[in-house]
Amino acid sequence: MHADECGLASARLTDVPLIQISQTPGLSDDDKRRTIEAVTAAYAEATGKNPASVWVTITEIPRASWGVGGAPLT
Amino acid sequence: MHADECGLASARLTDVPLIQISQTPGLSDDDKRRTIEAVTAAYAEATGKNPASVWVTITEIPRASWGVGGAPLT
Amino acid sequence: MHADECGLASARLTDVPLIQISQTPGLSDDDKRRTIEAVTAAYAEATGKNPASVWVTITEIPRASWGVGGAPLT
Amino acid sequence: MHADECGLASARLTDVPLIQISQTPGLSDDDKRRTIEAVTAAYAEATGKNPASVWVTITEIPRASWGVGGAPLT
Amino acid sequence: MHADECGLASARLTDVPLIQISQTPGLSDDDKRRTIEAVTAAYAEATGKNPASVWVTITEIPRASWGVGGAPLT
Amino acid sequence: MHADECGLASARLTDVPLIQISQTPGLSDDDKRRTIEAVTAAYAEATGKNPASVWVTITEIPRASWGVGGAPLT
Repeated sequence: MHADECGLASARLTDVPLIQISQTPGLSDDDKRRTIEAVTAAYAEATGKNPASVWVTITEIPRASWGVGGAPLT
Repeated sequence: MHADECGLASARLTDVPLIQISQTPGLSDDDKRRTIEAVTAAYAEATGKNPASVWVTITEIPRASWGVGGAPLT
Repeated sequence: MHADECGLASARLTDVPLIQISQTPGLSDDDKRRTIEAVTAAYAEATGKNPASVWVTITEIPRASWGVGGAPLT
Repeated sequence: MHADECGLASARLTDVPLIQISQTPGLSDDDKRRTIEAVTAAYAEATGKNPASVWVTITEIPRASWGVGGAPLT
Repeated sequence: MHADECGLASARLTDVPLIQISQTPGLSDDDKRRTIEAVTAAYAEATGKNPASVWVTITEIPRASWGVGGAPLT
Repeated sequence: MHADECGLASARLTDVPLIQISQTPGLSDDDKRRTIEAVTAAYAEATGKNPASVWVTITEIPRASWGVGGAPLT
């Protein structure tokens, strides 16, 4: 099944980088906008891939749920 | 349990951003070095977080195992 | 250590497919029920695997935290 | 930064479902093609979302690296 | 759709913890067996959950693909 | 770019195990503290790796969003 809508079919998209960011809460939506833009541009430039097809997700994990060296970040 | 070795205990590390990149195969180790460096710097600058504690992983998924719009990228 | 409770020990379970879905918010619990059922059945039929042992998780990521082509979906 | 190339900018793509499948090795590329197609179609139908923008990845984890009930699947 | 085979239907399984471990290569299958057993037991004891329904996966990521502080582990 | 702050540069950190736990909601912060500590210690002992550099995250997924055998856990 190939989707014709806007050429999202696999034949048109040769690359589909996925960047999943996990971090503790605290960034505003504006911070996230800047982060998505900066990370996408840096990735595309370093790899030579098309920034248009890069996906970035930001997941926030509470400090009490994130452990380093056996202890939570709280 | 707090690890004193090099201050990796949670009390010292206030932030631990994790950036997991998934992409199709093809980058050389040098490409990956550049990508890790560029993405870490861009993320740290956009968020104001400490680049020293950012982890980046790159996972390669074969084109036959990556579908867009219902069809694999092969 | 093998768990005897209901034969969940690895010897009985030959396959354990895991399907992790990430999407923007908006589905009702009923929508999720239908999605879990449909995706499990489609996967089991296409692969010939036992639907009983398929796990599906649905994670919702806010639109401001999901970027495509360098910009958030908001 | 908005990518105009083929309208992949966030303004055009309203939804970007991501389906990450993990399973033990053994499927052929044809099996994967069928799985990607079937899971995408089932997901799109159950949710009402556009199949064209659905990404599916299949990651294979060796049986010795997959534990159920405390024991690996080997 | 509820699977009757061995009571894996959701009604029987009240909890389904998933533990996904990512690490650099180097563990033998025996090491992985010990790790799966130890982590499952420790998790079950700390949470009071049933070890029989715990899934553990171990994914190995090459050192050149894992960055800390902007540099790969090689 | 190597971060000098506390020797977190890759040259000092030889191993960086990441343990991502997904479970249904219900654990208190104290439960999570115990879980992080127990899982880190068990992993370090089974693998011989340095517990100081182990990261553990706990993500909670609602029961209506977690399917087993084609049905949600609700």
